[in-house]
Amino acid sequence: MQNFDYMTPTRLLFGKGVIEKLPDVMSQFGKKILLTYGGGSIKKLGLYQKVMELLHDYEIIELSGIQPNPKYDPSVLEGVRLCKEHKVDVILSVGGGSVLDCSKAIAAGACYDGDPWDLISYKVKAKAALPIVDILTLAATGSEYDSGCVISRTETNDKIGYLDPLLYPHTSFLDPTYTFTVSRKQTAAGIADAMNHTIEQYFVADSTLLNDGICESMLRSLMANGRKCLENPEDYTARAEMMLDCTYGCNGILSLGNSFSGWPCHGIEHALSAYYDITHGEGLAIITPRWMKHILSAETLPRFVKYGVNVFGIDASLPQMEIAEKAIEETYKFFESIGIPMHLREVGIDESRIDEMAHHVAVNEGLEHAYAPLKEQDIKEILIASL
Amino acid sequence: MQNFDYMTPTRLLFGKGVIEKLPDVMSQFGKKILLTYGGGSIKKLGLYQKVMELLHDYEIIELSGIQPNPKYDPSVLEGVRLCKEHKVDVILSVGGGSVLDCSKAIAAGACYDGDPWDLISYKVKAKAALPIVDILTLAATGSEYDSGCVISRTETNDKIGYLDPLLYPHTSFLDPTYTFTVSRKQTAAGIADAMNHTIEQYFVADSTLLNDGICESMLRSLMANGRKCLENPEDYTARAEMMLDCTYGCNGILSLGNSFSGWPCHGIEHALSAYYDITHGEGLAIITPRWMKHILSAETLPRFVKYGVNVFGIDASLPQMEIAEKAIEETYKFFESIGIPMHLREVGIDESRIDEMAHHVAVNEGLEHAYAPLKEQDIKEILIASL
Repeated sequence: MQNFDYMTPTRLLFGKGVIEKLPDVMSQFGKKILLTYGGGSIKKLGLYQKVMELLHDYEIIELSGIQPNPKYDPSVLEGVRLCKEHKVDVILSVGGGSVLDCSKAIAAGACYDGDPWDLISYKVKAKAALPIVDILTLAATGSEYDSGCVISRTETNDKIGYLDPLLYPHTSFLDPTYTFTVSRKQTAAGIADAMNHTIEQYFVADSTLLNDGICESMLRSLMANGRKCLENPEDYTARAEMMLDCTYGCNGILSLGNSFSGWPCHGIEHALSAYYDITHGEGLAIITPRWMKHILSAETLPRFVKYGVNVFGIDASLPQMEIAEKAIEETYKFFESIGIPMHLREVGIDESRIDEMAHHVAVNEGLEHAYAPLKEQDIKEILIASL
Repeated sequence: MQNFDYMTPTRLLFGKGVIEKLPDVMSQFGKKILLTYGGGSIKKLGLYQKVMELLHDYEIIELSGIQPNPKYDPSVLEGVRLCKEHKVDVILSVGGGSVLDCSKAIAAGACYDGDPWDLISYKVKAKAALPIVDILTLAATGSEYDSGCVISRTETNDKIGYLDPLLYPHTSFLDPTYTFTVSRKQTAAGIADAMNHTIEQYFVADSTLLNDGICESMLRSLMANGRKCLENPEDYTARAEMMLDCTYGCNGILSLGNSFSGWPCHGIEHALSAYYDITHGEGLAIITPRWMKHILSAETLPRFVKYGVNVFGIDASLPQMEIAEKAIEETYKFFESIGIPMHLREVGIDESRIDEMAHHVAVNEGLEHAYAPLKEQDIKEILIASL
């Protein structure tokens, strides 16, 4: 078991109607709020109006139009500018993981005098960040309970995961009813995203009995509840269980004491969505089974057997390699069954930039230190198998 | 799924050698430390000397002799007095859950002008508490990661669970090597304590797929790793896994969104150790299977079946009642196999005060609202079955 240093100070306010506590939570900060959101779905939900009503005695500055795979330019830069100009006290993020990730980068940038990219690219360590409160409308990324954000810079095809303990949200409001109207496509991508977060922490050289059990339960729960969410988008219990499952994805609680996996599928997917701006969860679903197939070996076999037996209930008495291959097939088939396009071509990616992406990943993602080490050629083969 | 409001801000520093970070952690507070500990085992461990060496430039005031089932008088009162007299800045608890629980009550009492019992008995809500740092030497209670403490008041046979978010430790140092010298008796009691914490959160009317999986994995891990700790007390991995398992016991993470169980075995056991000062984990192990037998009914049957199949691997094709009865028997047999005395008489408790204890529990513990409601007569029957 590995040593670790862990803390997640975020308060989770979970359940139907918790938004009524928003004024109480916001009263801990000053009177100037930067309200961040995306394309306007929060207005259709009535959530924007509700927030405005609850916070009528605050000065609210708005930053809207934050896109999926949130962009450094214009969103982060504009948010930082607004915070500085208006001397904002706190950021209120209303939306999914992209809005929240963007808000985290703004929170750090707002307390830094130089170019915020210095922080995101780890050139400079942030000394402070504005407090962040979020109201989540999409179950997927786990950003509501972690200290990271992923920011894309279009002109350089960079998609960087920026982590700092200063970026934990102060409070996350998680009301599953806000996810009732999430589309089939986004619901499925959220399931795939959270499943991959779990898989990235499960396939490691050294894990604990408890972590294995938690990850296996997490995957079973995400598949069972995810299917129910797709069948009946207003199934409160299924939406609630899926929402909380996703929340645990990236703060480390699934792998305390495990050795580090290197998060290889994320490393590869970041290039896909940096170069082509595809939906992150779909990219992960496409990569995951191809990555599994690529790394299956005598050494990794026992892990795949455990995965197959405990997650998919594959008969433990079958030959080990058969269990492993079945497990990978079941992973693929599950993603396909929830409607995810399972080939890169289906999401608009052809072979033309594969060499370039494989090189970018090999240089930037450190996957030669992953659980199953990946060199540029491995990454290229996984990408080609995903076409 | 139930609404919830959850936060655990404690930092966990886990693994061999983490104590080297103690000066860095303590530097966040002032220069006056109340060092709390028990009967001197930390001196045998060399831990006392190590702490003194690392904190040589601090003013350290000592409170030693804190007993298991920590006492309001003298320990809490004396600690509060020392904190006030010396204007202590931070409490450093070095020991097991009892030392830490006592330290938490002191931390609150030190910031309150009246009788600290007002706080513990919920007459007055604490407005502040001193920060608490702990170095754990016993895996059992989970106090290192929760906001509660259990304090006994001898003259009234009260044993009260006092909870307040102010009481989360700031940082918990968890070095499994400090538990190598824990006796067989205390190791077994720790396993039973943590298993019961899990069972108390698993037997509920309404749970999530994920919580069920986490609790089942937790129980399997505690049994497997617990056995290894008893076989080889210096098995680092087993001690480490057990230590982290125990840490999750009482902060709510095992049951987020579950309906409330009422923690019935704890309610009953608190009377046993208040009246007879027995080892808490042993009391819980004795009560648990008798409580299970008492509440087994058509209504609770499915829960016991799930427990039997997923925790003990009992054949799911057997008749349901047979699975449930086997599961209860396996629970009993496991505790017996790790050397726990499984009858109240073996720990010095006879029938003489059972009526009195049952009445005390019925009046004070609210078990008529438990998952399977318990009235005074039920409590009495469980106690008699435990003799």
